Amino acid sequence: MHFDEGGAMIHVSVIGVGYWGPNLIRNFVANDQTQINVASDLQEERLDKIRKTYPSLRTTRDHREIINDPNIDLVTICTPVSTHYEIARAALEAGKHVIITKPMTATSAESEELLNIAERKNLRIFVDHTFIYHGAVRKIKDLIQNRELGDLYYFDSVRINLGLFQHDVNVIWDLAPHDISIMHYLLGEYPEGIVATGADHWGSGLENVAYLTIYFKNNLIAHIHVNWLSPVKIRQTLIAGSKKMVAWDDTEPSEKVRVYDKGFEVKKTPDQVYDMLIQYRTGDMYCPQIDSTEALATEIAHYVDCLETGKKSHTDGETGLMCVKVLEAAQKSIKARGREITI
Amino acid sequence: MHFDEGGAMIHVSVIGVGYWGPNLIRNFVANDQTQINVASDLQEERLDKIRKTYPSLRTTRDHREIINDPNIDLVTICTPVSTHYEIARAALEAGKHVIITKPMTATSAESEELLNIAERKNLRIFVDHTFIYHGAVRKIKDLIQNRELGDLYYFDSVRINLGLFQHDVNVIWDLAPHDISIMHYLLGEYPEGIVATGADHWGSGLENVAYLTIYFKNNLIAHIHVNWLSPVKIRQTLIAGSKKMVAWDDTEPSEKVRVYDKGFEVKKTPDQVYDMLIQYRTGDMYCPQIDSTEALATEIAHYVDCLETGKKSHTDGETGLMCVKVLEAAQKSIKARGREITI
Amino acid sequence: MHFDEGGAMIHVSVIGVGYWGPNLIRNFVANDQTQINVASDLQEERLDKIRKTYPSLRTTRDHREIINDPNIDLVTICTPVSTHYEIARAALEAGKHVIITKPMTATSAESEELLNIAERKNLRIFVDHTFIYHGAVRKIKDLIQNRELGDLYYFDSVRINLGLFQHDVNVIWDLAPHDISIMHYLLGEYPEGIVATGADHWGSGLENVAYLTIYFKNNLIAHIHVNWLSPVKIRQTLIAGSKKMVAWDDTEPSEKVRVYDKGFEVKKTPDQVYDMLIQYRTGDMYCPQIDSTEALATEIAHYVDCLETGKKSHTDGETGLMCVKVLEAAQKSIKARGREITI
Amino acid sequence: MHFDEGGAMIHVSVIGVGYWGPNLIRNFVANDQTQINVASDLQEERLDKIRKTYPSLRTTRDHREIINDPNIDLVTICTPVSTHYEIARAALEAGKHVIITKPMTATSAESEELLNIAERKNLRIFVDHTFIYHGAVRKIKDLIQNRELGDLYYFDSVRINLGLFQHDVNVIWDLAPHDISIMHYLLGEYPEGIVATGADHWGSGLENVAYLTIYFKNNLIAHIHVNWLSPVKIRQTLIAGSKKMVAWDDTEPSEKVRVYDKGFEVKKTPDQVYDMLIQYRTGDMYCPQIDSTEALATEIAHYVDCLETGKKSHTDGETGLMCVKVLEAAQKSIKARGREITI
Repeated sequence: MHFDEGGAMIHVSVIGVGYWGPNLIRNFVANDQTQINVASDLQEERLDKIRKTYPSLRTTRDHREIINDPNIDLVTICTPVSTHYEIARAALEAGKHVIITKPMTATSAESEELLNIAERKNLRIFVDHTFIYHGAVRKIKDLIQNRELGDLYYFDSVRINLGLFQHDVNVIWDLAPHDISIMHYLLGEYPEGIVATGADHWGSGLENVAYLTIYFKNNLIAHIHVNWLSPVKIRQTLIAGSKKMVAWDDTEPSEKVRVYDKGFEVKKTPDQVYDMLIQYRTGDMYCPQIDSTEALATEIAHYVDCLETGKKSHTDGETGLMCVKVLEAAQKSIKARGREITI
Repeated sequence: MHFDEGGAMIHVSVIGVGYWGPNLIRNFVANDQTQINVASDLQEERLDKIRKTYPSLRTTRDHREIINDPNIDLVTICTPVSTHYEIARAALEAGKHVIITKPMTATSAESEELLNIAERKNLRIFVDHTFIYHGAVRKIKDLIQNRELGDLYYFDSVRINLGLFQHDVNVIWDLAPHDISIMHYLLGEYPEGIVATGADHWGSGLENVAYLTIYFKNNLIAHIHVNWLSPVKIRQTLIAGSKKMVAWDDTEPSEKVRVYDKGFEVKKTPDQVYDMLIQYRTGDMYCPQIDSTEALATEIAHYVDCLETGKKSHTDGETGLMCVKVLEAAQKSIKARGREITI
Repeated sequence: MHFDEGGAMIHVSVIGVGYWGPNLIRNFVANDQTQINVASDLQEERLDKIRKTYPSLRTTRDHREIINDPNIDLVTICTPVSTHYEIARAALEAGKHVIITKPMTATSAESEELLNIAERKNLRIFVDHTFIYHGAVRKIKDLIQNRELGDLYYFDSVRINLGLFQHDVNVIWDLAPHDISIMHYLLGEYPEGIVATGADHWGSGLENVAYLTIYFKNNLIAHIHVNWLSPVKIRQTLIAGSKKMVAWDDTEPSEKVRVYDKGFEVKKTPDQVYDMLIQYRTGDMYCPQIDSTEALATEIAHYVDCLETGKKSHTDGETGLMCVKVLEAAQKSIKARGREITI
Repeated sequence: MHFDEGGAMIHVSVIGVGYWGPNLIRNFVANDQTQINVASDLQEERLDKIRKTYPSLRTTRDHREIINDPNIDLVTICTPVSTHYEIARAALEAGKHVIITKPMTATSAESEELLNIAERKNLRIFVDHTFIYHGAVRKIKDLIQNRELGDLYYFDSVRINLGLFQHDVNVIWDLAPHDISIMHYLLGEYPEGIVATGADHWGSGLENVAYLTIYFKNNLIAHIHVNWLSPVKIRQTLIAGSKKMVAWDDTEPSEKVRVYDKGFEVKKTPDQVYDMLIQYRTGDMYCPQIDSTEALATEIAHYVDCLETGKKSHTDGETGLMCVKVLEAAQKSIKARGREITI
């Protein structure tokens, strides 16, 4: 952290300004406690675009310039997954905190090594699982923590649309990190095993449609459907509990989260073991108001807070590692036509 | 078939008038070539209701009266699954054609035995997979047969809502027969293997949520999500092909079927093996007009036609058997936490 | 009322079994306290259809048979509007209570005369404004009566779709009686004036699209849009109050009524006359559970109750007359290109 | 137009950077042929925000600096309506082209005077009716020009939501310019008369809900519903023609424009004058692909083209004047409780 006129400022940098990096830059610019100094990319035309919008921002094609810059506190890594480990390791070794876009690394071994380096150097790793900072997810987390949903039964998430095909990872590594991180944050349970199925329709060796079933303790089950080849865009998550159920549709402009006072009661009588009575219960539905602050703005403010106070992040390296482990297990299972892989 | 004044009439009967039976009666009444003579049920209050609407219909609590009635050509069986085999066998042995509500029987062995009896006695078995006669399914079948969708990639079906819990079967046996029969009819392929997962949240031994992945040749894949414990009612089927994609939402009052001129093209160059180019293609969407005739009316007219002309039915006993085999395999897989079961 | 075995029964009849009449018959059959004895229509094929479903129902082509039948307590009139007055007058003169489908008569003078006859003969006139018995309307009425919405600001209703063209009345007389009766029931206020505009696109002299603005006291305003020539079917009503607002979408399969905790507050300060502060307030939304009983069943039970206890009906002849007066005023205004007509 | 290194560049400026101005700045920055030099506003904190994003942009609190700057070709006026005339006149007198946000001026007399000055000085006035450059509007214009809809019957537009209350104009002047400009562009006809109704629920003298009926020749009719106090956001336009009908829902993320092959045919026979036969026709529906370029980017490119080639603009001062005349007539009619005002 640097002390500039006006108080402590975190000097940040962004490596990789393709699709996602510019959003981070925009939010670093808007945050009062971060100062974005420099951005890098291998492609000059991307840097041109950045300079057009932010004429005062320094740019470079060599990310090592950023890593070696003593004036930088925090390195944000928005490059392809396969490069995360090398860049993050170099940044940590150079004494920088890091934000890594999801998924954290290409293997869990890499994530574990980064965690070790960070611990040794007393630095922070944040993984940019942006959805954890989305108003809808935070609202659902509140409902679960306040026991409004009761015991949790299942988590079902559909994230499908047309494109964009990634050259280096399949649809699971591309889209499921969102659902896995949301699932992990909301359920607060560690997965026991995974069954994954899917198909590759363009002969690239990379699945474009996949289905993940994730088993937890106590009959809790999760299912994730990710698809790059869907004619319609669906972003729907269902969470059922013993008291209430939630449907979150992120494509809705408003009323994204619906809380249903619906469920069932099982009435068992000693002599009616077979004929147990399931009674459905239906009541009102309500849509709580959702904080519409951009998730990335909330996320960056949270990282600033973590750096200043030392508090634990909702999306730290451990979270990132858990996600990579689930992805690895899913990968193994899908190649084995659905054989369960324990985690 | 009987010859009444006005020409040939098929004399029909319905065994079981709980939820679905009355719909069959109503459609037999409306069809000019069927004459519904008698209905049976174990519960007198159900028969009361039937008599109130159809005062001239004969009713009985003993279904054997129907089976032994020489005046009946066709017996419709709308009873719980576990009783299908016994009643259908008796009806066939008594020389009657049968319509059996889905699923055909509780085991594939039972279905096979019924098929043998029917062949020996030269009688017809129809299985009431109603959706095959739905305007939307027939329209999608046309699109596939006319090669408008190109090669098929996947079939994805979601059939979820709150209730109704069945005491004798799990959610797969209750709801998935719809999706399995539609899938079979549209894809025209025989499944190779099944991976099923799910959970039982009310401790009854019967799953209330389940996910089925069904593998076919040539990378074609199907997925079915059935759920008795969903806060929202979803009836959505996606079918993607190499040329076009279809989304069928059966909860839409109109515009149920959407045909998307969307897809992708893979451009491979000899020297660009790794960097193969996937180009997305998006174009117009259209909603073909759908025949809104009640599916059951179309179905009964089709059965009459089959009986009169000897033509093969779209939902004959073989179709019913295939569906039961898929259900059995799904059952085995779900108990084995997703192990693939070949069919 | 007649005393049959099993207690008092109201002997009812239906004149006119085209589109709506059969629904009344079905509900009279289902109601335990009404006995439907006879139906009439000028068209024999309509009677054929009725007899096919209700073989024991007596039918006739001469409605005077019904009116002169001493065994009938209540005559239901489902014929074209132009005939309502003559048939209702004859029925009342013959000592029968009447149910008249909406609108009550073709002129307000006719309605007034029927009211006079009914009073003189001590008989009841019910007007079949079915929507008043719809679960959604009753729920909204509760919200208004419990002051949950606060002071009412506006009522805005859109009822548009393709067809069906009526030969004898324009779109206002065909569709707006629904909105006018709902408006009247919910607002509980008498209209002061009407401005109506519209157009006739098929040169029949009958408007196929129309817009009605209805002024009430205290700045309360209502607007009704009816249209026979809309590509989409819309049934949406918005009601705003000083505390909450309601949106009722009758095409939604569930969640028909939404209650929004939204509004504004005006903060005036003595010195800030010009710059008065309007503050918007947004909060949760909820969908109350709606009674899904068929409106017609509730309506008939209500009429039975009125006849047995003498209680006032929500849709009596006075209500029917008010609706006809609004229709007449709208008709005048539309011909005068929007000139306000007082009622 | 100035000649900078790299070719001709239009030097632009923006006066007023409240809600809308920053969008213009962003698009001037992105356009290769415009160079945004300077922005002004009375509020320093607004200018602070602009400088934070565009550190190299010159700012001032005195708009006269801009008007007198010889280096500026084009002045963009994004201030409250009441100030449009004074600022635009000064800019024109100083020899600048102008872009004025809608509505053009507070009175039609003011608009006419600006048109006179521009003509005399050979300068261009553009009015920022942004929707004319929206992909959906351009697509619908194509359908109409290609006669795909046939003869036009009606234009019906609903633009309602909660807020934002304007202190200086009512909901008509705030929202209806969008609908009026779209209507004018699509129909290509001059309005004959207007009937407007509405209400003011917060006692400010400014209507917060209003309904406009606009009469054209040949039975063509338009209706516009604008509302600041609606619990739901609706942006729906229906356009019916003798051949096809269009529904445009701007809140839909995709499939904004639906073209319905629906309509009716009138069959008159000499002897069947009264009983003329209206036959409804229903067919497929399709959603044409819509150009998703930001409307403002298309608009600015169009203005650049107009300035370079002298071509007539789709949203020139004449268009702006027509819109103000319709607004004035609506204002008069609403105060006269719906009396028709001719234009």
